Amino acid sequence: MPAAQASGDTRRSANWQARRQAIIDTSASVFARRGYHATGITELCTANDLGKGALYHYIVSKEELLAAIHDRVMDEVMLGADRVAEAGGSPSQQLALLGHELLDVIHRYPDHVWVFLHEFPALTGERAAQFRERRRRYERRVEAVLQEGVDSGEFRELDPRLTALAWLGMHNYTYLWLKAGGRLSARDVAKPFAEIFMGGIANPTS
Amino acid sequence: MPAAQASGDTRRSANWQARRQAIIDTSASVFARRGYHATGITELCTANDLGKGALYHYIVSKEELLAAIHDRVMDEVMLGADRVAEAGGSPSQQLALLGHELLDVIHRYPDHVWVFLHEFPALTGERAAQFRERRRRYERRVEAVLQEGVDSGEFRELDPRLTALAWLGMHNYTYLWLKAGGRLSARDVAKPFAEIFMGGIANPTS
Repeated sequence: MPAAQASGDTRRSANWQARRQAIIDTSASVFARRGYHATGITELCTANDLGKGALYHYIVSKEELLAAIHDRVMDEVMLGADRVAEAGGSPSQQLALLGHELLDVIHRYPDHVWVFLHEFPALTGERAAQFRERRRRYERRVEAVLQEGVDSGEFRELDPRLTALAWLGMHNYTYLWLKAGGRLSARDVAKPFAEIFMGGIANPTS
Repeated sequence: MPAAQASGDTRRSANWQARRQAIIDTSASVFARRGYHATGITELCTANDLGKGALYHYIVSKEELLAAIHDRVMDEVMLGADRVAEAGGSPSQQLALLGHELLDVIHRYPDHVWVFLHEFPALTGERAAQFRERRRRYERRVEAVLQEGVDSGEFRELDPRLTALAWLGMHNYTYLWLKAGGRLSARDVAKPFAEIFMGGIANPTS
């Protein structure tokens, strides 16, 4: 089936989905190394071992590819947050678990996360709005756990927004040094980070 | 004086220095918006309102410009660290001051810091080595204050390297939302961040 014909389909085969996902992953590595703006379609074709027509069979545009890389990260991050919400437990336990889940995504997807954190300003229009909304939704989960801890007296009085930003910075910034195959696992980092953070927001009178 | 002639000089006038600094600052904004790899010399000429020959009167290459942006950030960061060392005080006080100084640089140089954090992999050879060495020197300052606090019993037992990375992440990551002219000043953020961090590493038995 010629690419031009197939790209009109709305229902895609499992094969197509898997190939598309592989293209997204390979392209994440290229963008991480070269930068999004500096990478042309020709380089993406070479990296994916596909002709231009064949590449467009799987992706609509370079920006759609960038959005897909962002979605890959956010899907994993939100899945982790859902697991934490399902597991329940005290606000401290939930925040520690959220940290472990987040570090696990950073550890498993270093290239995607690099692109995610560096190239988000390249998303435009509806794609930029969607990305901001998804990121905001995750941040609100963190803020909600902090607020819950304040309400229950487990955490001291704090600004949930600013505290969430401190927490996010501490965890997200590990993308610069927490690498798959490196000396430290996500768990090795999650535990001391949780100790610092929980000690810093614990209610001393509880 | 023609540019080609002047660029051979080793002693530069104050005017030349000031103009060069302005070019570095303007170029930081361009790199921050467009990305280093995607920005050509032509765009830098336009942004700086200079012809190619005139631009090369002030800079040797695009990479030298990138290194100068990194130096601008590191100069300010190290100056802040020197002020903290000079002021002395307890490890807690020093760490709080280091945080305030670091946030102040991020707040004042958002474009430089954006380029610093995103484009450092584009530095090559001697410039890359120098940048790594300067960054490492700053990190060791933070680690030394942490170790001092452990030794004096003010901080609990901790891994100075991992704890410094947590501290750096929490502070550096503010470059995404702490903006000059924004709602929050460096001080507004430094105080609650110091409370979280110091609470998290305090020695509970002291």
